[in-house]
Amino acid sequence: MLEKLKEEVFQANLDLVKYGLVIFTWGNASGISRENGLVVIKPSGISYEKMRPKDMVVLNLYGKVIEGKFKASSDAPTHLVLYRQFGNIGGVVHTHSEWATSWAQAGKDIPAIGTTHADYFDGEIPCTRKMRKEEIEKEYELETGKVIVERFKGLNPDSIPGVLVNNHGPFSWGADVHNAVHNAVVMEEVAKMAFRSFVLNPETTMDQVLLDKHFLRKHGKDAYYGQ
Amino acid sequence: MLEKLKEEVFQANLDLVKYGLVIFTWGNASGISRENGLVVIKPSGISYEKMRPKDMVVLNLYGKVIEGKFKASSDAPTHLVLYRQFGNIGGVVHTHSEWATSWAQAGKDIPAIGTTHADYFDGEIPCTRKMRKEEIEKEYELETGKVIVERFKGLNPDSIPGVLVNNHGPFSWGADVHNAVHNAVVMEEVAKMAFRSFVLNPETTMDQVLLDKHFLRKHGKDAYYGQ
Amino acid sequence: MLEKLKEEVFQANLDLVKYGLVIFTWGNASGISRENGLVVIKPSGISYEKMRPKDMVVLNLYGKVIEGKFKASSDAPTHLVLYRQFGNIGGVVHTHSEWATSWAQAGKDIPAIGTTHADYFDGEIPCTRKMRKEEIEKEYELETGKVIVERFKGLNPDSIPGVLVNNHGPFSWGADVHNAVHNAVVMEEVAKMAFRSFVLNPETTMDQVLLDKHFLRKHGKDAYYGQ
Amino acid sequence: MLEKLKEEVFQANLDLVKYGLVIFTWGNASGISRENGLVVIKPSGISYEKMRPKDMVVLNLYGKVIEGKFKASSDAPTHLVLYRQFGNIGGVVHTHSEWATSWAQAGKDIPAIGTTHADYFDGEIPCTRKMRKEEIEKEYELETGKVIVERFKGLNPDSIPGVLVNNHGPFSWGADVHNAVHNAVVMEEVAKMAFRSFVLNPETTMDQVLLDKHFLRKHGKDAYYGQ
Repeated sequence: MLEKLKEEVFQANLDLVKYGLVIFTWGNASGISRENGLVVIKPSGISYEKMRPKDMVVLNLYGKVIEGKFKASSDAPTHLVLYRQFGNIGGVVHTHSEWATSWAQAGKDIPAIGTTHADYFDGEIPCTRKMRKEEIEKEYELETGKVIVERFKGLNPDSIPGVLVNNHGPFSWGADVHNAVHNAVVMEEVAKMAFRSFVLNPETTMDQVLLDKHFLRKHGKDAYYGQ
Repeated sequence: MLEKLKEEVFQANLDLVKYGLVIFTWGNASGISRENGLVVIKPSGISYEKMRPKDMVVLNLYGKVIEGKFKASSDAPTHLVLYRQFGNIGGVVHTHSEWATSWAQAGKDIPAIGTTHADYFDGEIPCTRKMRKEEIEKEYELETGKVIVERFKGLNPDSIPGVLVNNHGPFSWGADVHNAVHNAVVMEEVAKMAFRSFVLNPETTMDQVLLDKHFLRKHGKDAYYGQ
Repeated sequence: MLEKLKEEVFQANLDLVKYGLVIFTWGNASGISRENGLVVIKPSGISYEKMRPKDMVVLNLYGKVIEGKFKASSDAPTHLVLYRQFGNIGGVVHTHSEWATSWAQAGKDIPAIGTTHADYFDGEIPCTRKMRKEEIEKEYELETGKVIVERFKGLNPDSIPGVLVNNHGPFSWGADVHNAVHNAVVMEEVAKMAFRSFVLNPETTMDQVLLDKHFLRKHGKDAYYGQ
Repeated sequence: MLEKLKEEVFQANLDLVKYGLVIFTWGNASGISRENGLVVIKPSGISYEKMRPKDMVVLNLYGKVIEGKFKASSDAPTHLVLYRQFGNIGGVVHTHSEWATSWAQAGKDIPAIGTTHADYFDGEIPCTRKMRKEEIEKEYELETGKVIVERFKGLNPDSIPGVLVNNHGPFSWGADVHNAVHNAVVMEEVAKMAFRSFVLNPETTMDQVLLDKHFLRKHGKDAYYGQ
């Protein structure tokens, strides 16, 4: 079932390695079939070299395994919260990519200070609050998803397709799993440049009008952008 | 028409990827035939893998498409301002390369503090002022060009072949498009080293006499330089 | 003798180069056969290109050469101290990898500020005290091992599989030599991200409960983790 | 003449590219035949792709071209000063490598704060004073050599095989040109790690006794070192 989606999710997981976002098995990507309400995700702890499309695991939105001989990635409950709460997204990616994770470990939002950022994220990339003892000890991966959703109160996940989990690392999403990977690459590039700009000038800012211009010329209803 | 120039512009766009200045489609290069008053530029949003020399777009100096089945890069109006105002340049490059963009996001000129810099840029690499609301909202890409030209009042674009657009990224130029790419690579290398020197010693400077010596032994009328 | 272990140790030494932890001959890996009490280690000063599995040197736990036509790595006495004092470890790695060494040269522990760290190291990665004149001048490599052991008073080497030697560089260990290399790669990645987080926010910390959660969900008796 | 030395110097120049120390033609390596008093150096401005061993230029110690159809590297006068004043050296390398140049641009010595440094350099890697107007304007490349020699008053070039020229970049040397390249690679690695250690702890130092131990166990008369 869902062979095409399995192939896409498989490829997206390999792309994480190709783009340098993942070493060992430190990442996972998933995609959803909204019409079936089924999520396809990377199996747990399988090396990228050995993994095959048919090894992908199919879950329903509440975590029940529908198909698959392996266990789902242990981060699956976080992915599922995002699919349940962010109704337009079609793919989710989690990595420990080096630059975004450095911001997450610092517990800081990635500020919107350049047009590269504004082309993809309509505002700063938010960092969640620290999780509480009971959240960590009980259903940790589920609560990780909830703390992301909490952080997006008042924010639009469709125009800010990524987040930093405090002391942990980035999650990104998109219209499909390929797009979620793309946004993960962008977040990493943006995190790297924001780090250096911060060192050069900790007070630097970007005007809202420039932020809006770049986001909307690319994503607005009258989009015309293409480098 | 202009087949040779199309080939050069095509190759220059690929070189941006080869030198690590561009990911995805985040850059564009163009060249001009001064005798015809025609500019050849990368098409909009075409991936580097699929792009062919014949896909390059031919424009006149005021943006009218003379030949080409694709749209021109949305940054074309900026390129055209530079060709109109800087009469000696034959090629223009724009990227979001990671080090130069970090300085642009910080809103700071790249200081001339080493001979690597002085071999190519006869002074600091200037950063433009922030653009105004009306400039951003109306003809943004055109106004981006104008703000560059404004920044060069009193500066010679032939001896400072590049600029940082505030909160955005670098533009570079040169005698032809190949040379513009070369200067983009140099700017990136210089931006990287200046960042680190700044961290080690924020007050570091270079004497004007050394700056002049290096620029002139390479570009002056009695040039003799060659490593 | 110990042909399989020689092959593993040989491969581990090559892996140090593959993972970018070593240039020239700046590193060494060893493995132990606990049942025989024999250690297999890289020969001294042999280039990685020319080295073969049969060139590995076999030592007893007190440094006597049991087999091998080359001298053992001059760091062998440090490895041997670790095998004698840390009874569960099966492999040891030493490198001058760039990020971990930068922390060692700074004389600072690598703080536990992210889950990437917590997945492998149950607390900060400690840095030894500076060595004393008499320790340096007499049996330097032996004393290097002793100062590591001293630093682990009150710490468990099985849950913190690595250390920084002050002004020097990292040692790591693991269940076998392959695992010791794996931990060396992790330490380097963690050192890199901690550096950047430190620059962004020198005061950043991680709650003990999150540290424990990550370490134990992967290494505890009820481990369930797999990305 | 000197065909073997030409081959070595040719190879050394290519190695600078291979090790990532040089882009474009931003570097040069030379070697000397002490018995003939002749220096072989890279020709001026020839790209590394096109260069052949027979293109190397042969000079006497005072800069007279003995053989070669190309001009010598414009940095030749600096190399020659070093050969004349540092009687034991057999090869010289100059690059604008990114990390060493960052220290040179900052006008700061690279402090000896780790054993990687101490394995090759018996003390800090010195940075020259800024050059004076008359030195820059007259015989600049010759004076560059002189200012290096001046900086080594009281230092031993055989135990500190490299220097930073202020606002410029590194020179290194060694027993032969291959060794000079090796020392250039080490200086770059050491410069990179010292930068990061400086950021983490600007006050960090290394005891003289540890510095001596590492340098002498590798280079002293009772050397025994080999990783």
